[in-house]
Amino acid sequence: MLKNLSHIGIAVSDLQYSIKIFQDFLNNAEYHLEKVESQKVNVAIFNLNNFSLELLEPTADDSPIKKFLENKGEGIHHISFEVEDIESELERLKINGFKLINEQPIKGADDKLIAFIHPKSTNGVLIELSQKLK
Amino acid sequence: MLKNLSHIGIAVSDLQYSIKIFQDFLNNAEYHLEKVESQKVNVAIFNLNNFSLELLEPTADDSPIKKFLENKGEGIHHISFEVEDIESELERLKINGFKLINEQPIKGADDKLIAFIHPKSTNGVLIELSQKLK
Repeated sequence: MLKNLSHIGIAVSDLQYSIKIFQDFLNNAEYHLEKVESQKVNVAIFNLNNFSLELLEPTADDSPIKKFLENKGEGIHHISFEVEDIESELERLKINGFKLINEQPIKGADDKLIAFIHPKSTNGVLIELSQKLK
Repeated sequence: MLKNLSHIGIAVSDLQYSIKIFQDFLNNAEYHLEKVESQKVNVAIFNLNNFSLELLEPTADDSPIKKFLENKGEGIHHISFEVEDIESELERLKINGFKLINEQPIKGADDKLIAFIHPKSTNGVLIELSQKLK
């Protein structure tokens, strides 16, 4: 069931600059850094009480985040729901007519399997499903 | 402290159409409707496990959501953090150089006081603070 938010992903052009902004905003909340090869991004993850904020900086010109920044500028890139069984949720959504960007899950940040649903299916909102790896 | 997400607000042009999409997406999750006079919107609120999704449809041409739809189209409009004391958080953010859209809280949906921070201060992300009314 899609009931738990995992994180909100924010596209940024300068990770160090944006980390400083969100540290100030979140009153010195802690974060950790990751590199996600599948999405070609450096990520700063602020684990807050009931969700995480992920700042996403592209590491290559063909990163999806690079294209997003060029088209839309900095801002919210996606929201992610945590699921128990990502493959069965993808199957359910496909049957219900939702367009999947990833028919099969791929490796995401924070030790998760992820898959994106096309924003044309969901009112312009790019939604990710994520499943924690055991 | 800004640690708890309250909700994600999504700008939509046709509320009934979008309710159907998110009901399908969320596997028949329940929702309720509200009208928020201060923002000139009709709102459908899906209360999920650890946050809510709010679908926002403008009710007037001078609604902030109407302007957002004209400029950017449907999609995520804002994210909202739940706080205990909205006035002290606004004061802290102002001291730290964040630009406030609302210097004083206003009445929002779901029986809350709300205030928006300018997205120029926060990497293009429109962030709301919200405090539950007792």
